[in-house]
Amino acid sequence: MPDHRYVVEAKRDGAEIDPEVLRAFILDYARGEVPDYLASAFLMAAFIRGLSIEETATITAAMVDSGSTLPLSSVGRPKVDKHSTGGVSDGVSLVFAPLAASLGVAVAKLSGRGLGHTGGTLDKLESIPGMRVALSPEEIEAQADRIGCVIAGQTPDIVPADGALYALRDASATVPSIPLIAASVMSKKLAVGSDLILLDVTAGSGAFMKTPESAAELAELCVMLAAVRDRRAVAAVTDMSQPLGCAVGNALDIGEAVEVLAGRERGRLRNLSVLFAARALAELDDMLPDEEDAPSARAARALDDGSALERFGAMVEAQGGDRHVVDDPWAVLPASPVIRPIEAPRSGFVAALDAERVGRAAVRIGAGRVHKGDPIDPSVGIVLGPKIGDRVEEGQPIGKVHARAEDAAAAAIGDVLGSITISDDDVDPPPLIYGWRTGVR
Amino acid sequence: MPDHRYVVEAKRDGAEIDPEVLRAFILDYARGEVPDYLASAFLMAAFIRGLSIEETATITAAMVDSGSTLPLSSVGRPKVDKHSTGGVSDGVSLVFAPLAASLGVAVAKLSGRGLGHTGGTLDKLESIPGMRVALSPEEIEAQADRIGCVIAGQTPDIVPADGALYALRDASATVPSIPLIAASVMSKKLAVGSDLILLDVTAGSGAFMKTPESAAELAELCVMLAAVRDRRAVAAVTDMSQPLGCAVGNALDIGEAVEVLAGRERGRLRNLSVLFAARALAELDDMLPDEEDAPSARAARALDDGSALERFGAMVEAQGGDRHVVDDPWAVLPASPVIRPIEAPRSGFVAALDAERVGRAAVRIGAGRVHKGDPIDPSVGIVLGPKIGDRVEEGQPIGKVHARAEDAAAAAIGDVLGSITISDDDVDPPPLIYGWRTGVR
Repeated sequence: MPDHRYVVEAKRDGAEIDPEVLRAFILDYARGEVPDYLASAFLMAAFIRGLSIEETATITAAMVDSGSTLPLSSVGRPKVDKHSTGGVSDGVSLVFAPLAASLGVAVAKLSGRGLGHTGGTLDKLESIPGMRVALSPEEIEAQADRIGCVIAGQTPDIVPADGALYALRDASATVPSIPLIAASVMSKKLAVGSDLILLDVTAGSGAFMKTPESAAELAELCVMLAAVRDRRAVAAVTDMSQPLGCAVGNALDIGEAVEVLAGRERGRLRNLSVLFAARALAELDDMLPDEEDAPSARAARALDDGSALERFGAMVEAQGGDRHVVDDPWAVLPASPVIRPIEAPRSGFVAALDAERVGRAAVRIGAGRVHKGDPIDPSVGIVLGPKIGDRVEEGQPIGKVHARAEDAAAAAIGDVLGSITISDDDVDPPPLIYGWRTGVR
Repeated sequence: MPDHRYVVEAKRDGAEIDPEVLRAFILDYARGEVPDYLASAFLMAAFIRGLSIEETATITAAMVDSGSTLPLSSVGRPKVDKHSTGGVSDGVSLVFAPLAASLGVAVAKLSGRGLGHTGGTLDKLESIPGMRVALSPEEIEAQADRIGCVIAGQTPDIVPADGALYALRDASATVPSIPLIAASVMSKKLAVGSDLILLDVTAGSGAFMKTPESAAELAELCVMLAAVRDRRAVAAVTDMSQPLGCAVGNALDIGEAVEVLAGRERGRLRNLSVLFAARALAELDDMLPDEEDAPSARAARALDDGSALERFGAMVEAQGGDRHVVDDPWAVLPASPVIRPIEAPRSGFVAALDAERVGRAAVRIGAGRVHKGDPIDPSVGIVLGPKIGDRVEEGQPIGKVHARAEDAAAAAIGDVLGSITISDDDVDPPPLIYGWRTGVR
């Protein structure tokens, strides 16, 4: 076996690492043949010295090759994969997958669980009684072909290096490195067959990247990593300074997604879902039949005419869930025993609505987890209506806390009020999308 | 327990770490409560970002406090500790300890074993039949008081953090960091009671520090770390571009030390030992009786009149070794079966004599170890007479290889010849000492 200290020494001294040697390091780590203490020293050196695009691409490719892939080659429609870097009330995937399916595209999405203040699509879906997210590769492929949308859990044999490396990064204070994040995100996307990878790189307090600039850097690197592998990817840098939708929880998020899919709720979550669906149609133009209407008009119509909702119901049913959730969500979804109103503490314009604080408030009452593997309560959470720029009046009901007990509800109301800044002057809302990045090579 | 990731994050981002938090990190690591992967990430961050003098002093103090100390308070003479950062044919400690003892000073030295191309004083001493180097604290203290010199192995309860941290640095490519080296060296010196710490910081191919400039940096930091603890230290930056003495082995090194202690061998090893002994006398002037002669004259006389050799014999006897080694070393020391001459390949002036290559040649025939714990053969090694600047004639015998077998001897001769550069032009010898550093605070 090679002396893997060479790789660590080279990165320590800021040198470019030979691709073959770096590849062997990652693959041997995935096989358990590089000790954690050497890998964490490498991660720290990479964190501080940085990684070139070539090195990041080498790591990404080695991560993909550390396990099996999901080519989805039998799916008979253009395939789009969609990924968000995480946020608060970020239900876009729940809306996007059936919406895109209703527009003739297939979405087979491997998703994750929530951690810290950010929610997870799998946790949300599992609040639907009976819903299964642990699907076999064959089930995923068949459902993508038949229904056009499937959202399932990452299987352990796809990119096994990522789980191990992420846990080590978390334990060794080397998580917030843009190249390491990009390699983690893109290895999982590149392991799954798709004609287009659509990335939502969130920016702001509720996101992993705190500024649009750092999010743009990550977005750019991600699309370049796709281009290196001759894969098409586009990334939007989106605002996550405030929660995207109104619901922060699990059943609550599903309830809101159904409202958007039914065309009843109009707001930032709907608008962003429409923009993503329209972008997917435009990018896959060459693979789709000609249509007269603009992609965004078609996407909006699919929400308003019930066809996207119908696809959501078909997906839920195919994965063992109660399809009735699309007709009457609250007859199906678990409800919490205590529901208390949140009132505006003063009159004025919402100037800030700290997404991370709202997310953490929801975690504290049981909607999310601090540590991987913690149990969650699907019924609890926070609903908060106003967005930055909205006018509120003192005492006006602006939301609700859904909790297990009175004291938890009271604490959450305090947390939420602490996350809101109200100003006498009117405030411009932040953009929905700061910009797009496309891979060029 | 605190979340020790904070320490790693702070150093990762180049911040100064709070002394109490850093101290707890090191002490918890020594107790096995900080995982290796987190400690190695810290070491890499410290390697790249550097450590301030205050941080280095905090780490050094925590390492000292991770175990027990050896105050030597009952020793009734001025105590000097002497340490070399390692080299090839570096027998100064073997000469210095009895020489200083013969001049009225006590030397209680905890020593190490050889690793890589550098030899170890303990290995050399153990080539004397019967010699024990595993002494109890009580034995060390009593012998220092009674005889004035003792050289023993580091006991595991003194600075236990150092053994663990050094092994981790070696395994994680974080060894060559000047602050981490200084903390390792000085923690072991500060844990032992002494009135003066005398450091030999070697510079050149046979040394850890490859240039006089980097050696001076290490020397300066070491004496500052002593000053922080109100301890007196002086450091010499010495040349290790070529082997210091002529013998590279274990029994061979002992044989050469006896020749120097007997006043028969004159050369760089004798000269440096005299300079160190003279410096110790000068520094401890206030603790010693007045003498008319200059310290260096007294040190040279102690070699020439047999008093230093007598102390060496007393030390060997006290530690169970055969005292006869001082009268007729080769009647006592193990000899190798094959001894072959090395001849000068051409006429000219020795321009270079690569100490690291000579050291590695000796390791390859069994005189040293590649990995900690490897067995060594005390009898084998290399003797090489000329020094840089010396004139040699083609075919002139310039040394000998002592080996277990003919093929090993032939290979070693080739290795040694490969380490020598002979020039037509005359060459200036390198200085013995590049300069001194003393602690000022």
